[in-house]
Amino acid sequence: MATLDLTTDVVTLTRQLMDIESVSLNELELADAVERALAAYDHLVVERRGNSIVARTDLGLPERVVVAGHLDTVPVNGNFPSRLDEATGILHGLGACDMKAGDAVILKLAASLEAPNRDVTYVLYDAEEIEAVHNGLGKLAASEPDLLAGDFAILMEPSNAGVEAGCQGTLRVEVRTTGERSHSARSWRGVNAIHKAGEVLRRLEAYVPRKPVIDGLEYHEGLNAVFVSGGVAGNVIPDECVVTVNYRFAPDRSEEEALAFVQSFFDGYEVTLTDSAPSALPGLDRPAAKAFIEAVGGEVGPKFGWTDVARFTVLGIPAVNYGPGDPMFAHKADEHVRISEITTCELALRDWLTA
Amino acid sequence: MATLDLTTDVVTLTRQLMDIESVSLNELELADAVERALAAYDHLVVERRGNSIVARTDLGLPERVVVAGHLDTVPVNGNFPSRLDEATGILHGLGACDMKAGDAVILKLAASLEAPNRDVTYVLYDAEEIEAVHNGLGKLAASEPDLLAGDFAILMEPSNAGVEAGCQGTLRVEVRTTGERSHSARSWRGVNAIHKAGEVLRRLEAYVPRKPVIDGLEYHEGLNAVFVSGGVAGNVIPDECVVTVNYRFAPDRSEEEALAFVQSFFDGYEVTLTDSAPSALPGLDRPAAKAFIEAVGGEVGPKFGWTDVARFTVLGIPAVNYGPGDPMFAHKADEHVRISEITTCELALRDWLTA
Repeated sequence: MATLDLTTDVVTLTRQLMDIESVSLNELELADAVERALAAYDHLVVERRGNSIVARTDLGLPERVVVAGHLDTVPVNGNFPSRLDEATGILHGLGACDMKAGDAVILKLAASLEAPNRDVTYVLYDAEEIEAVHNGLGKLAASEPDLLAGDFAILMEPSNAGVEAGCQGTLRVEVRTTGERSHSARSWRGVNAIHKAGEVLRRLEAYVPRKPVIDGLEYHEGLNAVFVSGGVAGNVIPDECVVTVNYRFAPDRSEEEALAFVQSFFDGYEVTLTDSAPSALPGLDRPAAKAFIEAVGGEVGPKFGWTDVARFTVLGIPAVNYGPGDPMFAHKADEHVRISEITTCELALRDWLTA
Repeated sequence: MATLDLTTDVVTLTRQLMDIESVSLNELELADAVERALAAYDHLVVERRGNSIVARTDLGLPERVVVAGHLDTVPVNGNFPSRLDEATGILHGLGACDMKAGDAVILKLAASLEAPNRDVTYVLYDAEEIEAVHNGLGKLAASEPDLLAGDFAILMEPSNAGVEAGCQGTLRVEVRTTGERSHSARSWRGVNAIHKAGEVLRRLEAYVPRKPVIDGLEYHEGLNAVFVSGGVAGNVIPDECVVTVNYRFAPDRSEEEALAFVQSFFDGYEVTLTDSAPSALPGLDRPAAKAFIEAVGGEVGPKFGWTDVARFTVLGIPAVNYGPGDPMFAHKADEHVRISEITTCELALRDWLTA
């Protein structure tokens, strides 16, 4: 039975978390350990749903913040268990930045802040790294949104210990061209669907991205073919070609507006939506967000990638990404985190919640 | 032990051939039956190499013609054994047109023409429907070209009982574009290889085919994408895209010239040759070819598809396609042949070889 020591320092705790393997859908052991460790603290109300744990202070304070992180990781890739390089101060291994360092900060704060200046809801959830249907935060948002209620939320995904606000939405469509098969020795009897896709790719190549500025942050959209496939046999004129296009859209566009743009962009072609997730407005004008940014300091950047902050936006809760580690190393064999960033994040949040 | 009766009519013989299953690489039983049946005739010198049979008259005549057909078929597709529809005069089933009707004509002529006006070499070979390395005619051409020596060759592939002269060559290349991966949320950090393929497809769409006239026959080239593939993951900018292009080229171009054309057509792109087979000149100016065409009558058409006639061209022997059946139904579940075309071909060849 794995155990976690929430009285140790945040770096040691990060390693304890990393050394309990919790690849998506295998979070049970880690969720058990988290639940047991938090249940020891009388100042927390601990609830569990599946492998997601919600621990709250209930001090009746006028403001409540949510601090959240996911417990799961992508599959092991020769990078388990953790390895600390004392010389460089870098902690290596699966989950280092995505996101057991963030989880460790959450658990340290939960255990040690008996009387924060705002009520806090700590959320540690499962299955973020796989299909959205499994996502523990998504399930809570759908079934018990009251458990996630708050004035402001911080998702501790890696952001180089800086604040990243909002997030871009993402959708995927299939743009399909059709033709007519024939033997390639008599190609003029058919219609080549792959050739028709040339115009689809030409439009993509000529695409100029929008870069809207929202709450002072410049976003940067993207419209890209991520897959192309077509062909029947080496001697057959192909009758179908599919270009899969991923649109990353800024937070001033809803999913519906984003789809309408893509449909109009590919006017004249068959466009099928296969996947869509909303953007999240940065919400930096909200008082809770302003106070947080003042407290942690530093430059605020836009979040280009999609994260679970969008789930809070859907609930009407402004949310930012703020956590230790460089997201560029997430999902990589050489995943790692600077231990100085872990302590920086812990201290900044502790100061903000105790000031 | 399967037997063939070469004294029966050509339609019944076609059915006997069709009812001995001989999917490529499974020609042993049929080859045995063919060899036994031909060996009964003293006017033939019969030689066997693997599952290919060569039967020759040896009358010392000044001219020798080669009449050839393959014994194998594509796989069974719910169309075995043969089924004769008496009402319509259509023979249905695997191998009906491709090419047991042609084989039956060859065997009837071989058995019955004791004293043809030209020496004749009858060739029945294996493994035409699969990778060229197995091709029985190709093996004979490479190892014992003397066995195939002649002034003119007729390949009895289906041609609607009309003469089709020459054949177009075929080659395939991969046109590759490369880029640089990045997360699609930060697409501007990468280079999209699929977008680059748009120009490749645009050139293909703008391609105007050559239609050279050779020996009075108009050929019709074709340059077509037959496959396209690219993509790494739904959220990754792809770093490679491959367009597979099939070029069908007229008999006035060699394989080298054809490749040079394709390389110049895709100037600026990485072009890799994956497959190539030569064209065959119609050779209608040769006396043997002229005499044959006069004898069988009808319009001579160009052969757009590639056939084994090209193997004779490589040996310096002019060759044409002439056989019963519509090639459009080859390799189809509803493969069939009009029995009138089988007898037409038999009579035309018999007249020409006995006039």
